[in-house]
Amino acid sequence: FDYDGPSMKTTVPGPRSQALTKQLGDIQNVGAVNFFCNYEESRGNYLVDVDGNRMLDVYTQISSIPIGYNHPALLKLMTNPNNLSTFVNRPALGILPPENFPDKLTESLLSIAPSGMSRVQTMACGSCSNENAYKAMFIWYRNKERGQSGPSAEDISSCMVNQGPGCPDLSILSFTGAFHGRTLGCLATTHSKVIHKLDVPSFDWPIAPFPRLQYPLEEFSRENAQEEARCLEEVEDLIVKWRQKGKPVAGIVIEPIQAEGGDNHASADFFIRLRRIAAKHGCAFHVDEVQTGGGCTGKFWAHEHWGSDDPADIVSFSKKLLTGGYYHKEALQADKPYRIFNTWMGDPSKNLFLCEVLNVIRRENLLEEVARSGKALINGLYELQAQYPGLLSRARGQGTFCAIDVRDDATRDKILVKTRDKGVILGGCGDRSIRFRPALVFKEYHVHLFLNIFNDVLTHH
Amino acid sequence: FDYDGPSMKTTVPGPRSQALTKQLGDIQNVGAVNFFCNYEESRGNYLVDVDGNRMLDVYTQISSIPIGYNHPALLKLMTNPNNLSTFVNRPALGILPPENFPDKLTESLLSIAPSGMSRVQTMACGSCSNENAYKAMFIWYRNKERGQSGPSAEDISSCMVNQGPGCPDLSILSFTGAFHGRTLGCLATTHSKVIHKLDVPSFDWPIAPFPRLQYPLEEFSRENAQEEARCLEEVEDLIVKWRQKGKPVAGIVIEPIQAEGGDNHASADFFIRLRRIAAKHGCAFHVDEVQTGGGCTGKFWAHEHWGSDDPADIVSFSKKLLTGGYYHKEALQADKPYRIFNTWMGDPSKNLFLCEVLNVIRRENLLEEVARSGKALINGLYELQAQYPGLLSRARGQGTFCAIDVRDDATRDKILVKTRDKGVILGGCGDRSIRFRPALVFKEYHVHLFLNIFNDVLTHH
Ligand code: FES
Repeated sequence: FDYDGPSMKTTVPGPRSQALTKQLGDIQNVGAVNFFCNYEESRGNYLVDVDGNRMLDVYTQISSIPIGYNHPALLKLMTNPNNLSTFVNRPALGILPPENFPDKLTESLLSIAPSGMSRVQTMACGSCSNENAYKAMFIWYRNKERGQSGPSAEDISSCMVNQGPGCPDLSILSFTGAFHGRTLGCLATTHSKVIHKLDVPSFDWPIAPFPRLQYPLEEFSRENAQEEARCLEEVEDLIVKWRQKGKPVAGIVIEPIQAEGGDNHASADFFIRLRRIAAKHGCAFHVDEVQTGGGCTGKFWAHEHWGSDDPADIVSFSKKLLTGGYYHKEALQADKPYRIFNTWMGDPSKNLFLCEVLNVIRRENLLEEVARSGKALINGLYELQAQYPGLLSRARGQGTFCAIDVRDDATRDKILVKTRDKGVILGGCGDRSIRFRPALVFKEYHVHLFLNIFNDVLTHH
Repeated sequence: FDYDGPSMKTTVPGPRSQALTKQLGDIQNVGAVNFFCNYEESRGNYLVDVDGNRMLDVYTQISSIPIGYNHPALLKLMTNPNNLSTFVNRPALGILPPENFPDKLTESLLSIAPSGMSRVQTMACGSCSNENAYKAMFIWYRNKERGQSGPSAEDISSCMVNQGPGCPDLSILSFTGAFHGRTLGCLATTHSKVIHKLDVPSFDWPIAPFPRLQYPLEEFSRENAQEEARCLEEVEDLIVKWRQKGKPVAGIVIEPIQAEGGDNHASADFFIRLRRIAAKHGCAFHVDEVQTGGGCTGKFWAHEHWGSDDPADIVSFSKKLLTGGYYHKEALQADKPYRIFNTWMGDPSKNLFLCEVLNVIRRENLLEEVARSGKALINGLYELQAQYPGLLSRARGQGTFCAIDVRDDATRDKILVKTRDKGVILGGCGDRSIRFRPALVFKEYHVHLFLNIFNDVLTHH
């Protein structure tokens, strides 16, 4: 079903893409547009553009395509007349769910629920998933403070005018380099790039250092453990400091691998200790798997690599899961309806696709494939960085969720463009990293195809 | 294509709905679930539930179904093989748009653009539409303050840690009773119900009184004009006060008719003066048409009733438009890419449906139909409130976007349930209002059908 390799007709963006970009420029800011796509002709790991260029896609729409383009199983689902009404009639799920909603949840999202969690709330994107997870943590925290008594008259009157105690000065602790979304709540916990944050009002919430580890992790375990210990100490200090400031930390949010911030890893030990610190100080622990979830690390959730049977209080997801949402422990469920609510509360048509994606992952053993391709990819990157020591460094990854650093950002950007002109789409992240985000159908031979092209680009650099 | 009337088999929720609610209760909070639906069997203005009850739907999934259930034009669109790939491959629209994206935007959203606006940014729901509209206003405001000079070194370093001047203390002025969404930025401008706000940290932003008018508007024009003048004065005072506080108002956000807050109307004159006040003080003017947009007031946008050719700087939409997003004036476009950005930036499959919905609206003259049905509905409500003076009051509306008040909230809730058991779905809003939110295919005979049933319920009350 896949094409057998890239096929380039023009440099990218080609003339047709350029004309369309000009056209769209009259309607929107097009500064971020790479090129225009022909999604009908795209297949599997290959994205075809409007100039007839066919490229191996190792970025997959910012890591949001689970099983490649136009997977036959998904096309088939579309032709099933029983599914039509799910697409045509989008319900207000929170008040009027369709008959098959509980079954579909059980069959899809609950079948992959993180350890210790049997409750899930669907949402529509990564931002509303995290925003609502934060709200769930705030509500839980205040209810815990109140004990048996309900909200006071002052709570009730003050919240309507944005003031405390009804709108309390609670905070979420996040990490330097984190990315959790761009709506105002999420953005207060995002610290990856200036362009995301500049000019937008924010909250005075604590920001702890994310460990800056040396790679390969195995070779620097002692140094890395020290760095992680330093960061954990800082977390505890900040929790105490913000409590004293009158802005107690209701929850800690963290990515299992920082993605937008530059593919920063930390050890299982770090996360397990962090979760313990959260518990010790009465903070909820929220693991944001929007980018890491869905199988790309070789396990369905990146946090499974920690080997803990109680990894978190909340786990949020989106992207490759097609629907957004979050799992949570029983205690984190809002005590009343309409506290966590919006018009659509997700989209059953995305759940339909997710069910089928999960079937394909199981049927085609894609998690094992990812583990295999990931091993080939990281080994290839190790070889390349040995071959080009002044140019490449810090190869790192889990499954196919890999990255490598380039000398500087200008060189990184140049390499991305050159590689694209040779038929491979990559993404940048952090200051000068290249991130690899293929679909789960990226096989070992795709890895070698990519490595050959990449090597070629580096040689002629 | 429509059924010819309600048909009730059980009280609602019936036994099957109750069983499913119990099942879903193991997974989610189900306090808000009304009943479970059979969307396959639902048609036009009729929603069918899992117990075989067929109800006239005058609430339409919180006002988000534009042309009724399973409209043949939308079903047909689904069977067109050319459209399959749009559903199966959701792109990252901001970087890799599909070939037909500019044309589809021109054909759909731009064909209904508010006066004076030729730019539109798609989003995925009402909340991200408003969050990003606010961000656009903040960015615009700070760029205006900076003039030619770019962000300072201090702007750049401070924003990464949530502090000023990079994350400035800017505010959005909103109104009592407003509803603009539930993510943290939106929620700081929402003031409709305690349950939406309680326990969630917020911003100290100014909140002006929304005029509390007497209805019918024509009969109280002098009193209402006074009330509106009072509110406008307060707006100017708040703008000055918040500037002095060091939290200047970057933008004013308002609904043309406050929906969740209780269907509160104001005059065209009020909005036009408000827009002038915004301009005078250098604030952007954002009209939130998430609930009012899409034709239900008898014009495509509720703000068209103001008769202004320069109604706003930003107009946001979602719900009946199926995609979210906002139109904006050229000046409100972010100066750089990635400032207004997220993974999906909307969903082309929703744009596809929107195109077809607009075709149907034009072909079937639905705006005229709405005006006609709306007149029948409001006249019917006037008659009912004359007939039940102790029970009903303040009938009001534009098009079919109508509401009426009930004596108290307990009575309102009882009437809603009784009416539903007789086969009509209505919604509440505010403290004790009933709101009418039918689809655009709600014809005059549906109005009479509803009025008969409603009258029956009121008689036996
Ligand atoms: S905020 Fe998630 S879809 Fe709008």
